[in-house]
Amino acid sequence: MSEREIYALDVSSLILNRLSLYLRCLRALQEEGIHRVSSQQLADQFQLSAPLIRKDFAQFGEFGIRGTGYDIGHLIERLQSALGLDQQHPLLVVGMGRLGTALARYLGFNDATFRVVAVLDNDPAKVGQEVGDLTIRHTEEIEEIVRELGVEIGVLTVPADAAQAVYDGLVDAGVQAVLNFAPVRLQLRPGLPSKSVDFRTHLEELAYLLLSKEG
Amino acid sequence: MSEREIYALDVSSLILNRLSLYLRCLRALQEEGIHRVSSQQLADQFQLSAPLIRKDFAQFGEFGIRGTGYDIGHLIERLQSALGLDQQHPLLVVGMGRLGTALARYLGFNDATFRVVAVLDNDPAKVGQEVGDLTIRHTEEIEEIVRELGVEIGVLTVPADAAQAVYDGLVDAGVQAVLNFAPVRLQLRPGLPSKSVDFRTHLEELAYLLLSKEG
Repeated sequence: MSEREIYALDVSSLILNRLSLYLRCLRALQEEGIHRVSSQQLADQFQLSAPLIRKDFAQFGEFGIRGTGYDIGHLIERLQSALGLDQQHPLLVVGMGRLGTALARYLGFNDATFRVVAVLDNDPAKVGQEVGDLTIRHTEEIEEIVRELGVEIGVLTVPADAAQAVYDGLVDAGVQAVLNFAPVRLQLRPGLPSKSVDFRTHLEELAYLLLSKEG
Repeated sequence: MSEREIYALDVSSLILNRLSLYLRCLRALQEEGIHRVSSQQLADQFQLSAPLIRKDFAQFGEFGIRGTGYDIGHLIERLQSALGLDQQHPLLVVGMGRLGTALARYLGFNDATFRVVAVLDNDPAKVGQEVGDLTIRHTEEIEEIVRELGVEIGVLTVPADAAQAVYDGLVDAGVQAVLNFAPVRLQLRPGLPSKSVDFRTHLEELAYLLLSKEG
C-alpha cells in the first residue's frame, strides 16, 4: 500500500523530500571539503532544478551570493533545524527477524539525529541476544522501555498478522510516530504520524511497468 | 528522495498501489479459507472505501453479485494478470552488506512471482559465501549472470558512492528495471522503470511531523 494513501500529506511531503535530498547533497559536498556551492552547481551535480533550489532556499531566508553561491555549513544548519533534525530522535525496533536485525544495525540509523536505543522481540529464545551494542528485550517491557529511554519513534518489523497489536502497544506505550515495514494496512491512531514501507508494492509496480513496456 | 520525483507516475502509481493492496487483502481472506467477499466486507475489514473498490474492480469487468459479493479466487487471478504478477520476475541483489543480505533472504521476495536468483558483491572476501540457497558471485560477472538466469529486476543495496556505477552496470548488462536502496539520487536511463526506497527520508519526514505537532 502506498504511504500516500495512509497519510494524506502529498504537497508538504514533496517539499520535505526535496529538503531532505538537498541536505544529503550538501553533506556529500561538505565531506569532500567543499565550503560553498551555487544553485547551478548543485543542480548539475545532483540532477536537480536550479530555479527550484533557489526558491526552496529563499523560503528559509537563504539567498546565494552571485558568483560564490551558498555557504554549505550554514545552509546545512538551517535545513536541519527546519526539519527538526538538530534534535535527537530515539528509535526502537520491534521484531528481530532478518529485516529488523538488518535495520537495527543499519548505520544510517545511528547518528546524532536518529539512534536505535532499544530492540524488542516477543520470542523468549531471542530475548537476551545481542544486536550490535544492544540486547534484545521482551515486547512486554515496551512501556517501561519507552518511558526510560524517551523513545519517540517506533519501527515495526513484525510479521503482518502481529503488526496491528504491536502498533497499538507502541502507541499505548507513548511512542509518538511509527515507521511500519509490515506488509499490512494498519488502523492508525488519528494525529499520530506514521509511514509505511512495503518492498513488495514497489516490486509489483515495477512488474506492471515491465508489462506495460512489453504490451 | 521521493520516488515521485524520480519517476513521474503519480496517478497510475496510486491505482497500482491500490490494486496491490486489494490483492494482499484478498490473499489474506483466501488463506483463511474464505471464498466470497462483498465490497462492504472488504472495506470494513481493511479500512478501505466500498464504492472505490466497486469502481476499481469494475474496470476489470468484475461485478459483485448482490448479497454474495465477489469470487475471491477469480478476482485474485484477474488482478494478478492485470499487474503482470502471473509471470515470474527473476531478481538479483547487488551488495551483500547487512541490508542486502536481509533483503535477499526476505521471504516476501521468494514466491511464484518474485524470486531472487543471484546475489552479488565486489568484495573477494564475500564472493563464494552462502546467502540462503545462493552463493555470492562477483559483480564483474553481472552480464553473464543476467543473460544466463534471465534476470529482469536488479535490486541495489550498495553504498551511496558505488550506486551510480553499479546501476549503470546493471542496465548495461540487460536488467529491465531497478529497485534502489542506496541513499542517492541516480542518473536514470530514460524508459527504464526504477524505484528508490530511502529509509532515512521516511524518518526525516516523521521528525518534521513531530516538530510540527510540538510547534
